[in-house]
Amino acid sequence: MSDTDRTPAERLAELGLAPIELPVFGTFEPVVAVGDVLHTMGHWPLRGAEAVTGKLGAQLTTAQGREAAELAALALIGSLAAHLGDLGRVERIASVLVTVNATPDYTEHTAVADAASDLLVSVFGDRGRHARLAVGVASLPADLALELTAIVQISSPAGHS
Amino acid sequence: MSDTDRTPAERLAELGLAPIELPVFGTFEPVVAVGDVLHTMGHWPLRGAEAVTGKLGAQLTTAQGREAAELAALALIGSLAAHLGDLGRVERIASVLVTVNATPDYTEHTAVADAASDLLVSVFGDRGRHARLAVGVASLPADLALELTAIVQISSPAGHS
Amino acid sequence: MSDTDRTPAERLAELGLAPIELPVFGTFEPVVAVGDVLHTMGHWPLRGAEAVTGKLGAQLTTAQGREAAELAALALIGSLAAHLGDLGRVERIASVLVTVNATPDYTEHTAVADAASDLLVSVFGDRGRHARLAVGVASLPADLALELTAIVQISSPAGHS
Repeated sequence: MSDTDRTPAERLAELGLAPIELPVFGTFEPVVAVGDVLHTMGHWPLRGAEAVTGKLGAQLTTAQGREAAELAALALIGSLAAHLGDLGRVERIASVLVTVNATPDYTEHTAVADAASDLLVSVFGDRGRHARLAVGVASLPADLALELTAIVQISSPAGHS
Repeated sequence: MSDTDRTPAERLAELGLAPIELPVFGTFEPVVAVGDVLHTMGHWPLRGAEAVTGKLGAQLTTAQGREAAELAALALIGSLAAHLGDLGRVERIASVLVTVNATPDYTEHTAVADAASDLLVSVFGDRGRHARLAVGVASLPADLALELTAIVQISSPAGHS
Repeated sequence: MSDTDRTPAERLAELGLAPIELPVFGTFEPVVAVGDVLHTMGHWPLRGAEAVTGKLGAQLTTAQGREAAELAALALIGSLAAHLGDLGRVERIASVLVTVNATPDYTEHTAVADAASDLLVSVFGDRGRHARLAVGVASLPADLALELTAIVQISSPAGHS
């Protein structure tokens, strides 16, 4: 069975991973659809019952940041699954913004964000290949390690193959 | 008269609020339409004739940041009103990005951004419910306290009900 | 020949400028299309063979930041040219996000970002007039001076005039 034959849910399972459902603290929605385009909230890393917090370049290493980025990507996938029902309706992850809680002298944002991007490509294949911006921000809500948002093209419930 | 019967302009008036029109300093437009989607500039807090400046976690308290966020939301509403003529053409506030001018140890970005989000929901009802990202940035133009951008779905002039 | 008669490629040439093609370091695409809307990666300033690095307010002056912003805009134009073949297919630069690598007390982000925006308007005319957000971030990958992303409306290959 070739890569393109498996569904995103099957690939997730093969990787031993599961979507993460985040609680929402604040006046906003996880996902809002405009036609066939989804806009998402900032997804953050939740490991078990605890948020991953701290700054890259200070409390957290790049390796820890990469794990946080994977968790945030799994949270994005969780929001998409909850909104769409079927992850097979993801037509394309169009763009991803990764805001890393980082010190002024931190420089390895690309390695951190790649962990999220690699996961999205592993799960969605070529449909997971996206444009990206990764930056280091001064601070994040509750000292979260990073946040990840995406703009996602979907197929219509009837029309997708 | 139920909540859904009133127009955004009527709700604004009931709240004792008015849209704010910002001057534009720089080579950019307040609003650009792509089909039925509006992209907006970063809106900043203008109180009377003065911009609200300073950093959250230093010169400004979270309460002051919340007031700044409301002012920025009123500026967004002002730009939408100027562009659309009728705020009733707002079909959905799809996503909001709040960039808070913040110190590295500031953590209450959610409380600040909620003030803007709450206002948008008060004015637009369910059409104001959006996806959101709130981050702390290192600095902003002219030391502004925060900036707020949005992606907004509109109805066509003829087609909206 | 009036301004509107010349193509973006002709205007670029008149300005003595050429599109820049960036290498991509990381798991992402320079440009992803969703219908007639392009989402782009963060474009950074490449001068000859070297990235422009350093922080505004520390290692770099505002004048150096403006040059970096122009280089990033030329890199955006390079990505659009590579994706579209013909820059004449740019219907509208809808929005631009400029993330400036800046110190906490830096305040001249508008002057920096204007250099990119002015260039886009010089090349694309009114189609280059965009909504914009310019912020100062704590740090960027590899200490880049700034990054620039855009959302761009294009005409279809057949349909554009």
